[in-house]
Amino acid sequence: MALQPPGAGDPARHNLDPHLTRYAARTEGMTASEIRALFAVASRPEVVSLAGGMPNLAALPLDSLAKQVQELIAEDGLVALQYGSAHGVPQLREQICEVMALEGIKAHPDDVVVTVGSQMGLDMITRLFCDPGDTVIAEGPSYVGALGSFSAYQARVVHVAMDDDGLVPELLEEALTSVASQGRPAKLLYTIPNFHNPAGVTLSNERRSRIVEICRKHGVLIVEDNPYGLLGFDGQTYPALRSLDPDNVVYLGSFSKTFASGLRVGWVLAPHAIREKLVLAAESATLCPPTLNQLIVSRYLATHDWKGQIKKFRESYRERRDAILTALKQHMPPGCTWTMPDGGFYVWVTVPEGIDTKAMLPRAVTARVAYASGTGFYSDGLGSRQMRLSYCYPTPERIKEGVRRLAAVLESEMDLLRTFGTVQRRPVSGPQTPGPDTA
Amino acid sequence: MALQPPGAGDPARHNLDPHLTRYAARTEGMTASEIRALFAVASRPEVVSLAGGMPNLAALPLDSLAKQVQELIAEDGLVALQYGSAHGVPQLREQICEVMALEGIKAHPDDVVVTVGSQMGLDMITRLFCDPGDTVIAEGPSYVGALGSFSAYQARVVHVAMDDDGLVPELLEEALTSVASQGRPAKLLYTIPNFHNPAGVTLSNERRSRIVEICRKHGVLIVEDNPYGLLGFDGQTYPALRSLDPDNVVYLGSFSKTFASGLRVGWVLAPHAIREKLVLAAESATLCPPTLNQLIVSRYLATHDWKGQIKKFRESYRERRDAILTALKQHMPPGCTWTMPDGGFYVWVTVPEGIDTKAMLPRAVTARVAYASGTGFYSDGLGSRQMRLSYCYPTPERIKEGVRRLAAVLESEMDLLRTFGTVQRRPVSGPQTPGPDTA
Repeated sequence: MALQPPGAGDPARHNLDPHLTRYAARTEGMTASEIRALFAVASRPEVVSLAGGMPNLAALPLDSLAKQVQELIAEDGLVALQYGSAHGVPQLREQICEVMALEGIKAHPDDVVVTVGSQMGLDMITRLFCDPGDTVIAEGPSYVGALGSFSAYQARVVHVAMDDDGLVPELLEEALTSVASQGRPAKLLYTIPNFHNPAGVTLSNERRSRIVEICRKHGVLIVEDNPYGLLGFDGQTYPALRSLDPDNVVYLGSFSKTFASGLRVGWVLAPHAIREKLVLAAESATLCPPTLNQLIVSRYLATHDWKGQIKKFRESYRERRDAILTALKQHMPPGCTWTMPDGGFYVWVTVPEGIDTKAMLPRAVTARVAYASGTGFYSDGLGSRQMRLSYCYPTPERIKEGVRRLAAVLESEMDLLRTFGTVQRRPVSGPQTPGPDTA
Repeated sequence: MALQPPGAGDPARHNLDPHLTRYAARTEGMTASEIRALFAVASRPEVVSLAGGMPNLAALPLDSLAKQVQELIAEDGLVALQYGSAHGVPQLREQICEVMALEGIKAHPDDVVVTVGSQMGLDMITRLFCDPGDTVIAEGPSYVGALGSFSAYQARVVHVAMDDDGLVPELLEEALTSVASQGRPAKLLYTIPNFHNPAGVTLSNERRSRIVEICRKHGVLIVEDNPYGLLGFDGQTYPALRSLDPDNVVYLGSFSKTFASGLRVGWVLAPHAIREKLVLAAESATLCPPTLNQLIVSRYLATHDWKGQIKKFRESYRERRDAILTALKQHMPPGCTWTMPDGGFYVWVTVPEGIDTKAMLPRAVTARVAYASGTGFYSDGLGSRQMRLSYCYPTPERIKEGVRRLAAVLESEMDLLRTFGTVQRRPVSGPQTPGPDTA
């Protein structure tokens, strides 16, 4: 039999894998998505990518950082380049408590575990809590990387809808009751209260105490993922759910959006008993987070005006948010709606009935604009009328040009729809996960 | 009820965990070990620790490294501090192929996946292949961190004995046959062919092709863990199992022992189909490995005499190996035996019948010497007459002093044994995992 050329979704190809019968059950459905292939095209310079979630690092003081890291290695290299503990560098854990205090959290450094980005924290928490078949409640839509972790541990995701004030408490309570009535109560509520990825909305202050109360009543642990909390465009912050119920909230934090994503330094703040297990789980996952990276962040926090730096980031993202909202208003065809983010990286757009954002994506990329189609943010096949636009990385001018191109593609889809009553679609097989936010 | 003071192994404490009923089944038995508590004591400066596996980095050219990292951040910081792909930096993957060529491996950079230390590679491979209840064959004794990963995925470990030439092929074949006869063939052979951790032995050249052949015949995938392969004291290397059967071996490599452990840069070389799944699994675990760390290693390999640096490491470890073997010969009481490592970090010592190395450890630490007791390196309770001595980190003088102290503790245990026919033991509850090799 002749070897076939590689091709995503080509069943003949999978039959060529001699290890096919050996994989664990959890790998089922673990296939690279069509969108991943598109991302390769979308990363060409002529394409305006509104698809990825890369922070814009241009405002970082590279020269002074470089000097500082040089000193760190020259003076303290034997520590910085050596193994550390799975728990994380003590001084950094203290500093992390100062960072979290900005959102009302009072915590002891012992209860902080440093992780390789908050993605690892998410993976570890899922490892600790989710047996195959367990249910995780998550907002619909939700963060792609979280859905990936839940799927890796064979947990089932039940989505609960948001509105402009974030997760809807009544719907959460309904979902918890419904899941429990099936005999196996939900294990976790996974939530991004601030400047939601991908929805761009924020949980209102009134709702925070209700969400916390509902979860406590139903015996469901809250996993609060908060990478964007300090990126409110007016400098506004919200009380962390963790501050409202320390014993029933696991908090995930990250320096990826407030300092540098390529260092992969995140953390988990967990109630004491969970934290002990978390350290053991982290040890079997990576032994320890990179010492050098932890010391770089620690020195940076100790010596740089990190709050001033976050303010610079905020301003740069606000400028981009303004650009995308202006462009959307100016160019998008009637029938499209979108959220109005007060912070963070994302706008969530809903297109008219009949348009399928996943089927439309190849045409958009051909027109030199990329976005993330909504289906990747649901585990249940929803989202085909939605798309996530990231305004974090391109310049305001590029953002405007990107939205102009996107609007033109949408117009032409809608023309087809009006003329033929349908838009020709590419065949799509089942729910697929888009590439990571790093694209 | 009054709160009780924290204490390892205190059952009352676990009852205080309000989340106790929520954990996943895989967390069962996940408790910090007694040995971990001892490690805290063992890290005091007056204690000679022969317990940990920390590489000795004193020979690293810190000033020139520091300068180089400064340039990297100043010139290329927007890349170095940004997200990358889960697959790893392409240039580094090419360089990794050059490193592996030293042990006879011909590989394509596409089939290399960069991981957060090879521990992460191990965790990812176990994730891909092991369902709960699956069997992994491993040498007895085996690497603690591997046993931790297998346990995290609820895989069962069957140990196969080694002799001075490493894993015994006949015993491997017996074990594979026996496991398969129970209806569920083993999934993986996990092996450390070179300068074994903790046994200090090396798989002979003759046995390598037999092991590869046996595994292929039995349909068992080989996971070859090779952190020490370039640390043969006479500069000798051995053909990697991967070089003998590229389609049936997943190879794990690391820069932790040949460059700097605190960067946490390791890799997996896997057959193509496995590699694709590996990238997806890694993405859900950490999104991507730290870009900065990958670029540091890449620049280091491109501009430093890295082979000369490895030679320096080898010489430093050889001097320490000589020191420990001389001291063992000089001081150890009759009835003790030990392996004779030609490379790597470890000597595996067997003590006379009646001595329990785990029970003896607190007395050793009191006498200001620490080791890793053998039980941690088995998942089946064996190893109580063994201990691992690491000679990698202390100076030769400290090593000699440590062995002298250890021998004195052993003598006094043996005296007790001769006088009373038994040594008073501390009660020990079930198999426990020691802390990581990083201690």
